Amino acid sequence: MAKKEKDFVKEITPMEEDFSRWYTDVILKNELVDYSPVKGFMVIRPYGYALWEKIQEFADEKFKATGHKNMYFPLLIPESLLTKEKEHVEGFAPEVAWVTHGGNQELSERLVVRPTSETIICHMYAKWLNSYRDLPYLYNQWCSVVRWEKSTRPFLRTSEFLWQEGHTLHETEEEAQQETLQMLDIYRQVAEDLMAIPVVTGQKSEKEKFAGAYSTYTMEALMHDGQALQAGTSHNLGQHFTKAFEIKFQGRNGQEQYPYHTSWGISTRLIGGLIMVHSDNRGLVLPPKMAPVQVVIIPIAQNKAGVLEKANELFDLLKAKGIRVELDDSTENSPGWKFNQYEMKGYPIRIEIGPRDIENNQALAVRRDKLEKEVISLDNIDDTIAQMLDTMQNDMFEKAKAHREANTYVVEDYEQYKKEISNRPGFAKMMWCGERECEDKLKEETGATIRCIPFEQENLGDKCHICGRPSKHMIYAARAY
Amino acid sequence: MAKKEKDFVKEITPMEEDFSRWYTDVILKNELVDYSPVKGFMVIRPYGYALWEKIQEFADEKFKATGHKNMYFPLLIPESLLTKEKEHVEGFAPEVAWVTHGGNQELSERLVVRPTSETIICHMYAKWLNSYRDLPYLYNQWCSVVRWEKSTRPFLRTSEFLWQEGHTLHETEEEAQQETLQMLDIYRQVAEDLMAIPVVTGQKSEKEKFAGAYSTYTMEALMHDGQALQAGTSHNLGQHFTKAFEIKFQGRNGQEQYPYHTSWGISTRLIGGLIMVHSDNRGLVLPPKMAPVQVVIIPIAQNKAGVLEKANELFDLLKAKGIRVELDDSTENSPGWKFNQYEMKGYPIRIEIGPRDIENNQALAVRRDKLEKEVISLDNIDDTIAQMLDTMQNDMFEKAKAHREANTYVVEDYEQYKKEISNRPGFAKMMWCGERECEDKLKEETGATIRCIPFEQENLGDKCHICGRPSKHMIYAARAY
Repeated sequence: MAKKEKDFVKEITPMEEDFSRWYTDVILKNELVDYSPVKGFMVIRPYGYALWEKIQEFADEKFKATGHKNMYFPLLIPESLLTKEKEHVEGFAPEVAWVTHGGNQELSERLVVRPTSETIICHMYAKWLNSYRDLPYLYNQWCSVVRWEKSTRPFLRTSEFLWQEGHTLHETEEEAQQETLQMLDIYRQVAEDLMAIPVVTGQKSEKEKFAGAYSTYTMEALMHDGQALQAGTSHNLGQHFTKAFEIKFQGRNGQEQYPYHTSWGISTRLIGGLIMVHSDNRGLVLPPKMAPVQVVIIPIAQNKAGVLEKANELFDLLKAKGIRVELDDSTENSPGWKFNQYEMKGYPIRIEIGPRDIENNQALAVRRDKLEKEVISLDNIDDTIAQMLDTMQNDMFEKAKAHREANTYVVEDYEQYKKEISNRPGFAKMMWCGERECEDKLKEETGATIRCIPFEQENLGDKCHICGRPSKHMIYAARAY
Repeated sequence: MAKKEKDFVKEITPMEEDFSRWYTDVILKNELVDYSPVKGFMVIRPYGYALWEKIQEFADEKFKATGHKNMYFPLLIPESLLTKEKEHVEGFAPEVAWVTHGGNQELSERLVVRPTSETIICHMYAKWLNSYRDLPYLYNQWCSVVRWEKSTRPFLRTSEFLWQEGHTLHETEEEAQQETLQMLDIYRQVAEDLMAIPVVTGQKSEKEKFAGAYSTYTMEALMHDGQALQAGTSHNLGQHFTKAFEIKFQGRNGQEQYPYHTSWGISTRLIGGLIMVHSDNRGLVLPPKMAPVQVVIIPIAQNKAGVLEKANELFDLLKAKGIRVELDDSTENSPGWKFNQYEMKGYPIRIEIGPRDIENNQALAVRRDKLEKEVISLDNIDDTIAQMLDTMQNDMFEKAKAHREANTYVVEDYEQYKKEISNRPGFAKMMWCGERECEDKLKEETGATIRCIPFEQENLGDKCHICGRPSKHMIYAARAY
């Protein structure tokens, strides 16, 4: 058995050795996804899908609490619709899949598999909207989208992914801006409160904004390896699409006008972030709120009188408390094997209970993020475990935040930054003049991109770190996934 | 206002005048769906999607309670996979959409937009399955599928629809058969317990079974107009696909063997059934369990002192009871207009409350299925309303069942049936020899098809009603959607 246990841990490449392989190992060994026969498309397996369901549940409740309703629009979009908004078509046309035949006949007009649904939704909104009384339109769609990617990586970049896309219309520019920021804040809650992933929120540069947007807002997270991940975006689309699609309404003054428009999305990409923020060389580490199973009970010497009874009692008690709990009383594998198994799967807490524990009215609890055994009393154990889960959720957030802070630094000198960046990944704070030229130069010379112009601005000097001209914004720069 | 009210009701074509237009009117006036710019594809609007969410919630809970987990497989399937199982490809190839180009390049192999996912799922199952210890595989997927239909009708037949598809593998033939029937029974619960739609359950004939199935089981409902609707199917796929896809496992005896396979699905088509079973010439009638809003409170003379306060109090009380309630205190429209509006939308109960009611410690309640005013006391009104909702749910089921029974008859003489059927739609019970020849003849001569060989068999004689040879089964025949 000792051999088996060792092998088990060995299966995951240590992240210090090869971060990319570590990531793939954690995903494949845990059966979160698998590669499909279509290049770049992945299968999301049950354990991976259960994580998406947690995100859906949390986000959908917040969407509804803020007045949004779900709808469903067609998967296929006529080419003529895709091309109506100029920037949008330039952004998406190169990476779409084309349906050319249906029911054994060639189509008179090609259809794209939706890469995002602004165009078809705007087409319908134009048909539906009449008066200011109909506004705001607060709608969302859960679906999959297809973007033909050349190089892919599970969860982070795949040719098909699951997401939600919100599409709203508003009477005024202010309301649209307010909505854009409100939804970004809901995304921040998904990341921070549910997934324990701290994020920096802010605005994208012109270069990095969504194709067709007036302005794009983002939340950016920092991974274990110091690379950034764009974890969710919210777009103020202004009137770009509403004008291109002739969406009009009769305003309060009786005049026809164009509404203001937003869209916003989060996707299965967040699961990639979850892994790269929390997991370790033993496998997944799941924050309790995200974990499909929060507690696993492992009986020790379960053939001894009373052990299984006590373990079952404990199971019932935790279940009644609303904790997602499993009892592994299988006899095929040793407790040691089970420990490794559930550590790999990232179950937040395991409870070991054997004859001596029962004698002493206690059990052992091991938090996945600390891997230290704690003796806990059987009295009020349901409260104790519920409390441990809460604390763990919080600790994981704080740990990730501390990691981010340790890997966020102020650039003093751009020349030095260029030399250092490969050995010093993380968020680099610097001043920027706002010019595309400097943004391109940064990318070319360092591989880093402007992740965002954070809402929380700091004054790090009057000059652009890149060109020395007067600075406009403080930015976060990083290499990114 | 009187005129406006009248117009409102007039907007829906009476079903006696034109059933098909009535159906479309109910759907469009309620904004359940709209036609999209792609022929045959529909947009599911928020009120329609909310109905689908109710079905999803109910079914997903039952799936999980019986050990199933959700997954997600790619939208696009290589042509070579689709063609692996002979009957399957013959059944689906004529009605699929083809992706031929991706990212500006022609693909080396065409991809189909999934019409159903047996093939790609089997391809992956073959890769994953090793041992009998891994079985059963109990997985499900919520997604959309595309089938290129020539003539379409909202919800009932569209080129894209939302559904769930379960795909399971089992060690033995018995287990697969048990699963097939278990899932059909869960579908029966969705129809009967949630949607108040009574169904006949049974087996499909060879001709009507799923392409590639060993046997197909179905639930069939009867619509207002006496036509049948196939409302959900569950397939025992035997080893057809597991052999074609080389899915093997090591059995208990150490030998390699092929597992037994099932698949099962329900779709947004159920919403079409919901409408055609319960609704009337005033619009939708929703069973309380399906209704996104169960109760609407309409204050009368709401400018009078105390009315809005009482209405709000009532709202809070019902909400606290877990009832999905809305209060319409808008001043733009009269109470009469509101009555019509909510009747059209099918809200199960409306409560009217005005100054005189308050004086008398009462309110008026109107059940959508009866449209009669009932005086109810304000004391314990939350219990009263909860009880009314339960009773209404039950009454709607019984009413639909009575309608079905009144429109189910035994065929005495086939020649007479041929003459009568156009004036006597409904379920026709008759005996059948089991031969395809008679099945084809029935279709050709009457337009009716064998809906199912019901589990509840009755002996209506020894001879096939169609050919006079010895009979094998009692069948339900009907014209169908």
